[in-house]
Amino acid sequence: MSKPIDPDAAPAGGGEAQPFIHPIRVRWADCDPALIAYTGQIPRFALEAIEAWWEHHVGLDWYALNLDRKIGTPFVHMTLDFRSPVTPRHMLECEVILARLGNSSIAHRVRGHQDGVLCFEGEFVSVFVDAGPRTPRRPPADILQRLLTHRGEG
Amino acid sequence: MSKPIDPDAAPAGGGEAQPFIHPIRVRWADCDPALIAYTGQIPRFALEAIEAWWEHHVGLDWYALNLDRKIGTPFVHMTLDFRSPVTPRHMLECEVILARLGNSSIAHRVRGHQDGVLCFEGEFVSVFVDAGPRTPRRPPADILQRLLTHRGEG
Amino acid sequence: MSKPIDPDAAPAGGGEAQPFIHPIRVRWADCDPALIAYTGQIPRFALEAIEAWWEHHVGLDWYALNLDRKIGTPFVHMTLDFRSPVTPRHMLECEVILARLGNSSIAHRVRGHQDGVLCFEGEFVSVFVDAGPRTPRRPPADILQRLLTHRGEG
Amino acid sequence: MSKPIDPDAAPAGGGEAQPFIHPIRVRWADCDPALIAYTGQIPRFALEAIEAWWEHHVGLDWYALNLDRKIGTPFVHMTLDFRSPVTPRHMLECEVILARLGNSSIAHRVRGHQDGVLCFEGEFVSVFVDAGPRTPRRPPADILQRLLTHRGEG
Repeated sequence: MSKPIDPDAAPAGGGEAQPFIHPIRVRWADCDPALIAYTGQIPRFALEAIEAWWEHHVGLDWYALNLDRKIGTPFVHMTLDFRSPVTPRHMLECEVILARLGNSSIAHRVRGHQDGVLCFEGEFVSVFVDAGPRTPRRPPADILQRLLTHRGEG
Repeated sequence: MSKPIDPDAAPAGGGEAQPFIHPIRVRWADCDPALIAYTGQIPRFALEAIEAWWEHHVGLDWYALNLDRKIGTPFVHMTLDFRSPVTPRHMLECEVILARLGNSSIAHRVRGHQDGVLCFEGEFVSVFVDAGPRTPRRPPADILQRLLTHRGEG
Repeated sequence: MSKPIDPDAAPAGGGEAQPFIHPIRVRWADCDPALIAYTGQIPRFALEAIEAWWEHHVGLDWYALNLDRKIGTPFVHMTLDFRSPVTPRHMLECEVILARLGNSSIAHRVRGHQDGVLCFEGEFVSVFVDAGPRTPRRPPADILQRLLTHRGEG
Repeated sequence: MSKPIDPDAAPAGGGEAQPFIHPIRVRWADCDPALIAYTGQIPRFALEAIEAWWEHHVGLDWYALNLDRKIGTPFVHMTLDFRSPVTPRHMLECEVILARLGNSSIAHRVRGHQDGVLCFEGEFVSVFVDAGPRTPRRPPADILQRLLTHRGEG
């Protein structure tokens, strides 16, 4: 009835030329009494989009990366500008770009659009660590190879 | 870039004979230190599946139902049995059935499977109210008609 | 600047005769466009109250119970009746009772009041497992002793 | 059994000389499989602390501000640096400072400590709007007065 998670069946694009877009269906549960998605929910949307990017481009979601490969990618920085309210009226299309790849850090830019309108944009910086002791490390060669392929792209 | 929410493009089935299945991608954010989806997240998964059922079968998500039609469907009862842990390893396929439709109440059954294994099952009862004063009411004729079509089905 | 978590400083009562009350400050973040706490948030309030009960009566929160004592208490059943909307207008006073203590299971009843009005009540059943393999087990003697003290009480 | 929300009973200080500290009890529900509070939860902790600051210094939580005074304070910017993991082992003491007060905007700085260690720090910028049409506005005189009192302080 259910299938294993297949990163190649990820919801959207991500080829060489086209940006990676992760669509999110905003729901009643996400909204507050101002009738828009609660501010505290927007970082979660962006993180979900970044995890979907990982799954699509690297073939590992954060659960597999941590449990199977023993690599963590804790965030050290996040900045967000909120441009326009997010509501359930339209799909939230989250564009994810690999902005920078350092020796032991990685930065993504995320821009969320609804109906062609930019709702938020932000940058999110993580570091690579060994999952147990949380010591900084370089990503292993196979993961690095897949990341390098998508530097500066969606 | 984005499209308006189109209930006919809902993610899964729901025809006369086949059950309505709402797939959920369980994520890192949903999991707790026991490496499984946090118990408090399971009711949210089930509610999301019920809202997707509404969107698919009635053509209204809860946001539109409340804001455009001024009808609320607050829950009065929820019961859940947790059969097997939910993890990000497989898609969570949530089957939703309209179990009962009363004069001013509605009950859904939800069963969540991962990889063919039943993870949870529950029943959720709502009442129809006018969105402002929260007085009980019958659903309007057009919504009732669409609900009646799916009584006892997915 | 900060202090270690001290269960003896738990927010409310729990002596022999008086019920255990865990107060929760309902916030904007908890509310949906119907101007009340989102239904999916209520089980989380109840679980928080049960964890506070553990901390107060047994001296272990779920984090310490799992990580330090290697004991998990996954939920197998939850039932909730929603009696009256929860809002940020009043404190949410959650009364927790240890309803039953079996060989390898434990059941709590939770009732949430605001301003003297019963908002929800529910029952929550967990089983004791070894945190790693998730095999059922009896609680260890010291924990059992502390649980037995509070059977049928708040 | 319950009492109305009384801002004067807010959890911590905020007098002229001392900073405003909002304590948060980090819970199992907040943590992810890396055994620390999920990154997406940290902005929510900070927002809760800012709302507690409003409640304490202005006498209005966001629910009352929006519903009773018809004033919204949507966020337009958020930046966060994550310095050290947040866990349930210690209370999370969130210090909130009113950093800037403009004609129709307000900026807070939040720093979260556990056991004397800085876990995160961030800045959060909101604008004042009329709650319905979301048009920018100055805060009303009584609210402005209370805000001015705490400019540059906790």
